[in-house]
Amino acid sequence: MLLKNLTPYRTARDIVFKELDKLVEDKIELTPIYEASNRIAAEDIFSPEDLPMFNRSAMDGYGVIAEDTFGASETNPVILDLLEDPNTAVRRGQCVKLSTGMAIPKGVDGVVMKEYCIEGEGFVEVRRGIRPYENISKIGEDIKRGDLVLKRGEVITPYHIGILSSLGIKYVKTYNLSVGIVATGDELVDLEDVSSIEELKKKRYIVNSNTPMFYALTGELGFTPKMYKSVRDNREEIEEVLLKAIEENDVVVTTGGTSVGDRDYTLEVVKDIGEVIIHGVKIRPGKPFGFGRCSLGEKETLLYMLSGYPVAAVVQWELFFRGYFRSRRSIYLPLKRGVPSTAGRTDVVRVKLVSENRRTYVEPLRIRGSGVLSSLKDGDGYILVEEDIEGYEKGDYVKVYLF
Amino acid sequence: MLLKNLTPYRTARDIVFKELDKLVEDKIELTPIYEASNRIAAEDIFSPEDLPMFNRSAMDGYGVIAEDTFGASETNPVILDLLEDPNTAVRRGQCVKLSTGMAIPKGVDGVVMKEYCIEGEGFVEVRRGIRPYENISKIGEDIKRGDLVLKRGEVITPYHIGILSSLGIKYVKTYNLSVGIVATGDELVDLEDVSSIEELKKKRYIVNSNTPMFYALTGELGFTPKMYKSVRDNREEIEEVLLKAIEENDVVVTTGGTSVGDRDYTLEVVKDIGEVIIHGVKIRPGKPFGFGRCSLGEKETLLYMLSGYPVAAVVQWELFFRGYFRSRRSIYLPLKRGVPSTAGRTDVVRVKLVSENRRTYVEPLRIRGSGVLSSLKDGDGYILVEEDIEGYEKGDYVKVYLF
Repeated sequence: MLLKNLTPYRTARDIVFKELDKLVEDKIELTPIYEASNRIAAEDIFSPEDLPMFNRSAMDGYGVIAEDTFGASETNPVILDLLEDPNTAVRRGQCVKLSTGMAIPKGVDGVVMKEYCIEGEGFVEVRRGIRPYENISKIGEDIKRGDLVLKRGEVITPYHIGILSSLGIKYVKTYNLSVGIVATGDELVDLEDVSSIEELKKKRYIVNSNTPMFYALTGELGFTPKMYKSVRDNREEIEEVLLKAIEENDVVVTTGGTSVGDRDYTLEVVKDIGEVIIHGVKIRPGKPFGFGRCSLGEKETLLYMLSGYPVAAVVQWELFFRGYFRSRRSIYLPLKRGVPSTAGRTDVVRVKLVSENRRTYVEPLRIRGSGVLSSLKDGDGYILVEEDIEGYEKGDYVKVYLF
Repeated sequence: MLLKNLTPYRTARDIVFKELDKLVEDKIELTPIYEASNRIAAEDIFSPEDLPMFNRSAMDGYGVIAEDTFGASETNPVILDLLEDPNTAVRRGQCVKLSTGMAIPKGVDGVVMKEYCIEGEGFVEVRRGIRPYENISKIGEDIKRGDLVLKRGEVITPYHIGILSSLGIKYVKTYNLSVGIVATGDELVDLEDVSSIEELKKKRYIVNSNTPMFYALTGELGFTPKMYKSVRDNREEIEEVLLKAIEENDVVVTTGGTSVGDRDYTLEVVKDIGEVIIHGVKIRPGKPFGFGRCSLGEKETLLYMLSGYPVAAVVQWELFFRGYFRSRRSIYLPLKRGVPSTAGRTDVVRVKLVSENRRTYVEPLRIRGSGVLSSLKDGDGYILVEEDIEGYEKGDYVKVYLF
């Protein structure tokens, strides 16, 4: 039996993303700003105020009326009266001492850096002229009231945290999904059950590396992973673990047993307890991607049935899960070598960026198998050779999605 | 008083990095592989084994002797005896059923995908010929014994975790530093003490955004941040908090009060209790960068005295701290607009990448002030215009360090 009715990549993506749209609607947490870094914003935040909120001194120095300093120099300094209270309104011939960040008092329209002044008893000798508003951070210079400072769906960076806290914002809504991870396969042994490499070789076991890897991939998105012990290729066992994982999570990721044949128990079970929406996509690697949903009680859970091969599974996760929450930065760069491809299928080609003589090129990684994790570890990103394209030639500019 | 004896950027970097070399030597933790994602490796790991550890089937199908299938087709199938036990040695005319990932038994040198076979009672009709070793993942195909699978200093990704767990490796050595964060400034109010924006505007307070931002920046590196309440510009208060922070941390980051003049208490205190190694670097923004060390008892702590302006502080952190632990990915791309600069100073210019007609260009962000966090939030990276270069022209290829 062949995998028939393969769904084109873009169609599959649309179907999956629509389901995610519904799922995430209420998966929202109020997160203290300190803990929000690297999480995904679940709200737009418009600035409630200008930043700075008032004109501030950009330097340590003396607040003056700029006109008073015109023409001042080392050989021809200007003498200004120094007011004691830095909050006093300043008139012609007067100045106040200001530290960086302090509010600019009335009248002041410029700050002379202290390096260019000599302070005496009650007066200041100004040795350099300034332009109006020199060394003043103007109200709204950084952010204007009403500016969008955080966009729903954006990954929150330390810089957002800087801006939000400047605005006195203490909490931000973020998405959180619990993701259950279930690896299947008779050949698997879980990492915690490995006693020695000799045993692995002797018993011909393969360590279940997908579960720790997807645990990390989930955490990377700021979501909450939940691991389950790996399961044999046995319908009853798979059903039992799947039901538990579905009940306990918003999304369940399974790996293994999604191709066709005797071991497709995961798909069989999901067909019985829920719905398989997609099985098989025109991509490579990752063709046997399965996607479904299941409602136990009120709650709906989405099911990602991924390949057992780590790289195929990562590609499926990248295109159909991670891609929804975090789009990769993309840039166009020329190819160092051609990339052949077959029309009618979207190829996901891992690439390395190489720089020579101040130019950066894209080098497709030669892949020996879809199990080859080193192509991800050593890669800088990937290119998509979409269905309607029969590959690229050396020198062609391609869009690289950066890891 | 001007900041004199500015240290050139590359010299300052060398000095700081040498101190970090010494500091990190014993800041090593044994981390369970599950928790190692995004942390920095403190050891080289060479693969103790080949991966796969034995020849495995790359497909669900039938293990055969490839030669037996030569010339097989739908119209001219080959009939092979099906052995019951998949671990039996296979001879000419025989085959075994294999699932993906299963060890290849003796004699077998190829796997025919099940799609091209019809299984009968004790025999299999093979309808496609295969080449020797087709559909077999060969021993060592992914990783060879002795390959460096994780390099000291590398950021551990989910893909490393996949590889390490495949090898049965359960723990990895990572670096962890505790970083104390102390903001100084009379104008500051801590986020938790903000009651309303109206109050901020009325009292002319500025929210201490540096502490939450550096908390996040520290966490981003997998290190342990520790926050302190912000401190007034008062020598005694600063000394008290600094002593505590130095005692409790491997690194202390202060912000504010590093320029010159009345408020440089941080530098004064560090001079008294330890040593100021650098004060002032030929960079922009970030010129007043201060760096020192202090030993209380056995333990040495490094001090990063950063600017009060968030962007200057971030640049200092980026060049002198983050840069040690995580080098940014860099690519060469052409400038969309010239970048003027002054020789004798290294300019750190924030840039955006813009793509038009399948080409990507570097657009320098027009910056209005060094307090402008939006230049970081909206930026894709930065370029360094080093001391000996007087800027770049439109079309020049520049090295972009990507955020």
